Amino acid sequence: MTSASQASGYDLLGTFRTTLSNVWPANQSQIYTELTKLDATELIRVAEEGARGRKTYEITDAGRTELRHWLLETTPNGYRRNDVLLRVFLLGAVEWHEARAFLRQRGEVMTERLAGLRELDAAMDWGDDPLSVYGRLTLEWGKRFAATQAEWSAWAEKEIAGAQAAAGEG
Amino acid sequence: MTSASQASGYDLLGTFRTTLSNVWPANQSQIYTELTKLDATELIRVAEEGARGRKTYEITDAGRTELRHWLLETTPNGYRRNDVLLRVFLLGAVEWHEARAFLRQRGEVMTERLAGLRELDAAMDWGDDPLSVYGRLTLEWGKRFAATQAEWSAWAEKEIAGAQAAAGEG
Repeated sequence: MTSASQASGYDLLGTFRTTLSNVWPANQSQIYTELTKLDATELIRVAEEGARGRKTYEITDAGRTELRHWLLETTPNGYRRNDVLLRVFLLGAVEWHEARAFLRQRGEVMTERLAGLRELDAAMDWGDDPLSVYGRLTLEWGKRFAATQAEWSAWAEKEIAGAQAAAGEG
Repeated sequence: MTSASQASGYDLLGTFRTTLSNVWPANQSQIYTELTKLDATELIRVAEEGARGRKTYEITDAGRTELRHWLLETTPNGYRRNDVLLRVFLLGAVEWHEARAFLRQRGEVMTERLAGLRELDAAMDWGDDPLSVYGRLTLEWGKRFAATQAEWSAWAEKEIAGAQAAAGEG
């Protein structure tokens, strides 16, 4: 990875499909919509216009100031909505065996995700530049998060089996 | 905890403030708005109306069917937006020492959250009923998630220190 200071919507789509998909999914139309808005508010500007109207953008000084402010002076919304956990909290509404199947499936999904992230990690050509350093940290978080979920799912399924047995329904 | 089949908005607010705050934050006005909508679509109904118009709701058969469908037949949106990780990915826009301070602070926030969840866990009177079982699994996920984040933050800060030293700026 290089620390490119210019990027087209197409370049950004690549980034969102690899490292960023794990933490902030965005599709093509969202990316182009945001680029247009950022351009209109002069936080980025068109650096180059190529064939078939393909635009390459670069950040402006105002954009850098705003990015810095957001990074260092705003509080991340620490708690986040997790629709898997919300389902878990409500699993009392279904049978024990259905709840166990739900957890088993979540475990499988997370184990697969972990394998996919490990492959991605192995395929990346990480350098010492900041974009590589922070991309690698983000990917490592994704791996740890998936591993934690997989382990928790296996543990949770066993807990449910124990409760099922205690209820005389095992 | 008991497996209550009826609840008022006030009861639900208590649940959202304790176990659910970790996975699906909701405030008082959101809770009352949703109860009104669910009542209008007959997924819940008013079971009792007490002093000062306080309403106790219960789920209807249609509501149970819908809940079951959502729990077992819809796919959780596995990937979720994480504004902390998005910041991490973009930390190349600030100085190494600022990035390290950011990670250090995230580690502290997560260590505090973990301590808070452990206290909550110790204070809960968990039983063998489904609501207790699944509430406990949800809380355990919150604890593991916070621990994973705290460990990752400490690891990430060291990685940044290494990159900083490699760049001759340590």
